[in-house]
Amino acid sequence: MTDTQPTANIKLVVAYNGAAYHGWQRQQRHIDTVQQCLEDALVRVVNHPVAVNGASRTDAGVHALGQVATFRTTATNIPVEGLRRAVNSRLPDDIVVRSASLADEHFHASRSAAGKTYQYRIHTSPNRPVMLAGRTWHYWRPLDVGPMRQAAARLVGTHDFRGFATSAEQRDNTVRTITACSAARLGAEIRITVTGDGFLYNMVRNIVGTLVETGRGRWPGERIDKILATCDRADAGPTAPPEGLYLLCVHYDDGSVSSNR
Amino acid sequence: MTDTQPTANIKLVVAYNGAAYHGWQRQQRHIDTVQQCLEDALVRVVNHPVAVNGASRTDAGVHALGQVATFRTTATNIPVEGLRRAVNSRLPDDIVVRSASLADEHFHASRSAAGKTYQYRIHTSPNRPVMLAGRTWHYWRPLDVGPMRQAAARLVGTHDFRGFATSAEQRDNTVRTITACSAARLGAEIRITVTGDGFLYNMVRNIVGTLVETGRGRWPGERIDKILATCDRADAGPTAPPEGLYLLCVHYDDGSVSSNR
Repeated sequence: MTDTQPTANIKLVVAYNGAAYHGWQRQQRHIDTVQQCLEDALVRVVNHPVAVNGASRTDAGVHALGQVATFRTTATNIPVEGLRRAVNSRLPDDIVVRSASLADEHFHASRSAAGKTYQYRIHTSPNRPVMLAGRTWHYWRPLDVGPMRQAAARLVGTHDFRGFATSAEQRDNTVRTITACSAARLGAEIRITVTGDGFLYNMVRNIVGTLVETGRGRWPGERIDKILATCDRADAGPTAPPEGLYLLCVHYDDGSVSSNR
Repeated sequence: MTDTQPTANIKLVVAYNGAAYHGWQRQQRHIDTVQQCLEDALVRVVNHPVAVNGASRTDAGVHALGQVATFRTTATNIPVEGLRRAVNSRLPDDIVVRSASLADEHFHASRSAAGKTYQYRIHTSPNRPVMLAGRTWHYWRPLDVGPMRQAAARLVGTHDFRGFATSAEQRDNTVRTITACSAARLGAEIRITVTGDGFLYNMVRNIVGTLVETGRGRWPGERIDKILATCDRADAGPTAPPEGLYLLCVHYDDGSVSSNR
């Protein structure tokens, strides 16, 4: 690509089952990551090197229904729908580009993102759900969703969430705004859905691990207030495993949301 | 086991994701089959050789939510609930014993079975459903469930189903009774559920392949009557792939049904 060639800024909405991948982010060594797979497939369609930017750097084993990714291409002659089909035919079964569209010149999947919604699925039953292995957290003990719902509501607002971040979190500013956090039972499943303007490293999984401690009766809902006050990771619950976590959608300032269907 | 030792006849209800297995039935060569995995796990619990009898010999890639299996053991000192837990801890994640119970001396998982219910899941959408790979048949074209439902109803009754059997079917008597056959849409999914006193080789998958031809408008419902009359496999539709097929439950004469939950 040279400066003289016209380029298009393409926005992709991507879904994937993260079970087989070492997360979204391309690594130095060539190991299986979603970004790498997507870039490899795109290169074969547009015939030039491609760098994809993703809205969320999902961890190993984490899934996405509405990940957003942008990339620039000089292959402006390919209609976006043709591009989508061509890329999908070159992607493995567990990754799909759900939509492709021409984006504004300045649109950037991660920098333009105003917020994200994650959902966490917990399967509560004595028997492991064989058809959901790698897709939910199988939790053997019974969980009472009432206390979890009340504890979840305490997270809403602008707080310092350092107590819910892994100790490896490097960012100085650990204040984030959670606009919605709910827990609901759906048959044998409990689904925790959380929307915020940004998330610290392992934040959703640490929130889930903490809510589960309230659901099994170990902690009262006030524990949330304590963690938000002390900012001490040791006060929060264990990190929930990655397989129950889904990036549902990404929110943008213009009000658009990457659909989760 | 000698004749002098007391033995117990144990009934298991087993669920599995068949994606990783060459079907239920143990093979001469040691390849991964569900029966082999189950027997290997049982041997480690009861400490003697075990031969398991399954109600349905599901094919490679086919799933089960309520498979029934029986086996005899001299380890009559182990409570069945303890046995269930011990076996589950020795089984891979994609197989689970949902219940274990002491059965009547003469109960036999396959010979005592009076009928079976299978369900077939078709996912109809332009995008492949990444979280359902290996769990549904992804069908790209739109399908109209109305004609499928009407065609399904024509299968109910006692008929010679040879036209719906694979040509490798060896049994002389190909007359079976279908007591219920339905097609229903559930969001992007079409589910075909069929109950009968017995099924020929590939019969459910050939029924599904035929119903899909009616759903895409290629054949009218009367095609079913023709296949039942000619008994010619060439008149029926293609064999639907295994990954959409689930053994839901097995029916017994005493009215008991292996639950599909």
